Amino acid sequence: MIKVGVIGGTGYTGVELLRLLVMHPQAEIAAITSRGEAGVPVADLFMSLRGYLDLKFVDPGAADLKSCDVVFSATPNGIAMTYARELLGSGTRLIDVAADFRLKDVDTWEHWYGMKHACPELLVQAVYGLPELYRDEIRTAQLVANPGCYPTAVILGLLPLVEGDLADPATIIADAKSGVSGAGRNAKVGSLLAEVSDSFKAYAVPGHRHTPEINQALSFAAGGKDADILFVPHLTPMIRGIHATLYADLKNSATGLQQRYEERYADEPFVDVLPADSHPDTRSVRGANLCRIAVHRPGGGGRAVVLSVIDNLVKGAAGQAVQNMNIMFGLDETGGLVTPALLP
Amino acid sequence: MIKVGVIGGTGYTGVELLRLLVMHPQAEIAAITSRGEAGVPVADLFMSLRGYLDLKFVDPGAADLKSCDVVFSATPNGIAMTYARELLGSGTRLIDVAADFRLKDVDTWEHWYGMKHACPELLVQAVYGLPELYRDEIRTAQLVANPGCYPTAVILGLLPLVEGDLADPATIIADAKSGVSGAGRNAKVGSLLAEVSDSFKAYAVPGHRHTPEINQALSFAAGGKDADILFVPHLTPMIRGIHATLYADLKNSATGLQQRYEERYADEPFVDVLPADSHPDTRSVRGANLCRIAVHRPGGGGRAVVLSVIDNLVKGAAGQAVQNMNIMFGLDETGGLVTPALLP
Amino acid sequence: MIKVGVIGGTGYTGVELLRLLVMHPQAEIAAITSRGEAGVPVADLFMSLRGYLDLKFVDPGAADLKSCDVVFSATPNGIAMTYARELLGSGTRLIDVAADFRLKDVDTWEHWYGMKHACPELLVQAVYGLPELYRDEIRTAQLVANPGCYPTAVILGLLPLVEGDLADPATIIADAKSGVSGAGRNAKVGSLLAEVSDSFKAYAVPGHRHTPEINQALSFAAGGKDADILFVPHLTPMIRGIHATLYADLKNSATGLQQRYEERYADEPFVDVLPADSHPDTRSVRGANLCRIAVHRPGGGGRAVVLSVIDNLVKGAAGQAVQNMNIMFGLDETGGLVTPALLP
Amino acid sequence: MIKVGVIGGTGYTGVELLRLLVMHPQAEIAAITSRGEAGVPVADLFMSLRGYLDLKFVDPGAADLKSCDVVFSATPNGIAMTYARELLGSGTRLIDVAADFRLKDVDTWEHWYGMKHACPELLVQAVYGLPELYRDEIRTAQLVANPGCYPTAVILGLLPLVEGDLADPATIIADAKSGVSGAGRNAKVGSLLAEVSDSFKAYAVPGHRHTPEINQALSFAAGGKDADILFVPHLTPMIRGIHATLYADLKNSATGLQQRYEERYADEPFVDVLPADSHPDTRSVRGANLCRIAVHRPGGGGRAVVLSVIDNLVKGAAGQAVQNMNIMFGLDETGGLVTPALLP
Repeated sequence: MIKVGVIGGTGYTGVELLRLLVMHPQAEIAAITSRGEAGVPVADLFMSLRGYLDLKFVDPGAADLKSCDVVFSATPNGIAMTYARELLGSGTRLIDVAADFRLKDVDTWEHWYGMKHACPELLVQAVYGLPELYRDEIRTAQLVANPGCYPTAVILGLLPLVEGDLADPATIIADAKSGVSGAGRNAKVGSLLAEVSDSFKAYAVPGHRHTPEINQALSFAAGGKDADILFVPHLTPMIRGIHATLYADLKNSATGLQQRYEERYADEPFVDVLPADSHPDTRSVRGANLCRIAVHRPGGGGRAVVLSVIDNLVKGAAGQAVQNMNIMFGLDETGGLVTPALLP
Repeated sequence: MIKVGVIGGTGYTGVELLRLLVMHPQAEIAAITSRGEAGVPVADLFMSLRGYLDLKFVDPGAADLKSCDVVFSATPNGIAMTYARELLGSGTRLIDVAADFRLKDVDTWEHWYGMKHACPELLVQAVYGLPELYRDEIRTAQLVANPGCYPTAVILGLLPLVEGDLADPATIIADAKSGVSGAGRNAKVGSLLAEVSDSFKAYAVPGHRHTPEINQALSFAAGGKDADILFVPHLTPMIRGIHATLYADLKNSATGLQQRYEERYADEPFVDVLPADSHPDTRSVRGANLCRIAVHRPGGGGRAVVLSVIDNLVKGAAGQAVQNMNIMFGLDETGGLVTPALLP
Repeated sequence: MIKVGVIGGTGYTGVELLRLLVMHPQAEIAAITSRGEAGVPVADLFMSLRGYLDLKFVDPGAADLKSCDVVFSATPNGIAMTYARELLGSGTRLIDVAADFRLKDVDTWEHWYGMKHACPELLVQAVYGLPELYRDEIRTAQLVANPGCYPTAVILGLLPLVEGDLADPATIIADAKSGVSGAGRNAKVGSLLAEVSDSFKAYAVPGHRHTPEINQALSFAAGGKDADILFVPHLTPMIRGIHATLYADLKNSATGLQQRYEERYADEPFVDVLPADSHPDTRSVRGANLCRIAVHRPGGGGRAVVLSVIDNLVKGAAGQAVQNMNIMFGLDETGGLVTPALLP
Repeated sequence: MIKVGVIGGTGYTGVELLRLLVMHPQAEIAAITSRGEAGVPVADLFMSLRGYLDLKFVDPGAADLKSCDVVFSATPNGIAMTYARELLGSGTRLIDVAADFRLKDVDTWEHWYGMKHACPELLVQAVYGLPELYRDEIRTAQLVANPGCYPTAVILGLLPLVEGDLADPATIIADAKSGVSGAGRNAKVGSLLAEVSDSFKAYAVPGHRHTPEINQALSFAAGGKDADILFVPHLTPMIRGIHATLYADLKNSATGLQQRYEERYADEPFVDVLPADSHPDTRSVRGANLCRIAVHRPGGGGRAVVLSVIDNLVKGAAGQAVQNMNIMFGLDETGGLVTPALLP
């Protein structure tokens, strides 16, 4: 059994990690930390876990995380970097579900996250935890930077185009729509039901942190070419789910898109390329560690429209983190992650 | 023109008051106060008011409220009582949309609201602003305690039964369901879309502040008999609306319920008794200052089931407050309040 | 492996059965019938099942259901009774998830369902599939009438009161609220998002089919005493979930309610009695085969308020059906049913 | 008073027309037709209109529409064209809120709508009812083709770019999101709450009828240049609202976008250009005849991102139709249309 610690277990990513880990046949949760809820049974905060989890939240200072094989950090940005060095030094492997280790360039990171990075030397060492792009590196990684929710949907939707040099990564538009759980389990007026239900809006049009993360991965996939996507996120009145609508000007070489997508992901357990002319809805992946993709070429013209859906809390966060754990420890990659979506 | 001030204009009751007042033919908004947003144009916070309202929030200390004919107080509980005496002393009339003046008994008030009352002598003077029960008193009132949202729906649904001595007010059950805007525009985890959407729950089953308010009105309507209803509120995943399902054991004299309800409310502009066998939905009153009521007697048996719906922000708060203003100033009672509900 | 057939696989109960059965370690789906969708891959209709189920819908006439060990009938009411005799005659056991065999009294059935019953003799033989009340009978049953969604929530919430003679089953009120999936996957104006979202309503106040079903079970639990509850269903704008709020006048003997509830359900794997003063939300059981119950006695008075929540499609339909299958075939009762709810 | 008839009053556009017309100071509703509901009081079908409208639906054959000054046709596509000639011949003016007269080219129309056009000669005569583009023509029009909901949001969002030759209309992408009321008040599985709530999807990516309508208007605005936008509609789980996110490659001449937008719409009563860096939400126009627009140029780069929101039933249908009526009859253009949005 893999001995697992979870830092910051009171947010949506935290409770989703717990939902998946209590059912994982080879993982055992040793500690769940929370500053604010220390001493409270986890199942008191999250009634869904009654009968599945008998632990209490413990203060981070009091938790014996160094004896864990792996620690998931589900805290806000800027926290994992303060203890990463110590944890790794003790031989515990770390999967940061926040953004502290996602960008390779420290200046870019500090610009977008508005703080000084506490351990820039680890940025180099960290592996970007998108198995479809970095599976081999993840196997041996001590520190995995779990991808953001938007980047997961956008990158997976674009990989076949960019890897195959079928589209110029400088002309791509990603119009993405997210459910409200993506904003976290924080008391914010902007996430109240009475504010966002029965409404729809764009946000961060001038710029969003996930843009450099997406560009970094696409540039790598494009063999080092610059990527400069135009990314516009939107808030949609649902709990879970991301729908990315991706627009790319195609090069002349871009033929047989459907087949290329199918081949690229043929061996991927958690990417499902739909038949031609499909329109995936986000509920088709609700609760599942899965990205469903449909590729279109309207009117046979020069532009591709790719539809990519995930559950932001699963393939976009906790599920992908568990997938990374499975890879890191040589387990069956699908362990604990095989369940159909909840529909309706 | 009636010169109007609004204290605490940043909550849902506040913005709803503004929505109604900007369209009122005989009201003019002179000042809108907010501690936190002083200096900010109101229409910057509430985009819906762009083009309708050109004022900025002002700090309560800087607002010339005493020159207003009437002030609506839409602050949290416990604030209006701190300035009521002074305002009234200057001749300005006050409509408190919060709960400071709703209960006649100061001990009961202090028990349920958990604080010392700042001006208990005004409790006697305050008129409970339910026009269907206290219209004459409202006309001359200096201080009106605008009813709570649940009490409005429950009391209006029960008045014909209780006034006519058709049911014992000690056996009545009020099972009420509210949209989330009833919890206010405050940053609370419990009101996040991701917490309350696609879910349903009861709360405050052991006891809720609106119970003594309902009992006080029903007891008055019953000629002083004790009322002791069992009131259970629920949270339903919608923005606006209250649906009260009311259960009462009927006395033998309780015949012709449909007719009694129709007669009781025949002259009321904002209570609509539906035909027999109706089931009102809350959207039929969304945005409208209206209470729709259906009365049932399942199987012709000994129990009445009354369905009563309002928009909690209109007839349950801001609309009723404007109705009270109209009455207090001798205006047409329906001024500014005649618009159909927004459906769908 | 249990060989399973599903009749009527295109509705919400059908797809939920499939979601559970594809993950069941001891069940194998042999056939899924549909008149309208015969020949269509099931995963084309329900994208959530892509990768989990490789079958096509077959016409009922063409399906070899008699070779199945058990058939789940998830058709509209009135269909299962037309083939029950034949199936049972061939030795196949039948679990009807619709209402054809729920009532013992044929006249009552014909009154509420508005048609002639095709095989009244089977009403006697059928076992009401509520394991918490009829587990022993279910073990050997050939024909199980799976309970309705409302009855499951209401009966489980009341059993300890009624079995213990703590409340008079003639005075009980059940105010129940259901998500819209309870109305089925049928094209109906009344179930459109634009009709029922952001709204709330009661329906069927004069009488609902589930009332006799509830009374029949409560009367049995009360040792044959007449039960005559007042049942009022409501529609709430969510997909899944039922919340029953139950009101009962208590007898003097009704002490220690919390303990009685805990003892009654101590050995039940799918009933969770919450600690005192709890308020379960329906999302705490979303996707889970579970009934969570909280029992209150407001003010220590003479009335109990019981809150009972289920997922209408799981413990209220498909999950309970699988639970019954497990019991009928001597499997672990929890087989295929142990997963935490999806929260948020 | 303008004497008004409404054909097809049972859909969402119909009831929205009625909501607006009952409050219009210079309009009087003479007849509301419906084949299916003839004889039923309108307020029985739409409870929101109780007290505001005392008419019954009449069969189209029995309605004296020719005595009306203007008839709104709110039927499905393909109906208005069957009676347009006759109505116009009698001197009654016609505003078709469906699509029968929106395209000038009959072949294009027949291709997208899949039927033969009944009166192609009227396509020439019909005026496209977008006041911001065709106000003068609308004044004297006998037949107005009220724009589609998506086209209204998209065209208004792009007019300043296209008229000013600031962007090539062949490179524009319109990623649009609509509430479910846009699918109409028809019994369709795909519009059920249980299908579309808590989910998000694109549809009609290969092609949508509104594309030629948008191109026709943009081409006109561009002085006849070909327009060929890429239009992708999405379904979002809300009742009302359209959010169009518009992407355009800018020409070098495209400076001062904010000012250009403000100037273009300075005199338009129902287009609100927001300050720089704004993100309108659809609820800011819910129930209001208004298009709010924000224009962005992320990173000062070569692409514009324009956000354009409307209420699909108001500025996207019934409200715009009333605006057209006001213009056609020389009334104040804002008559009956000045109310703030319903927020929250």
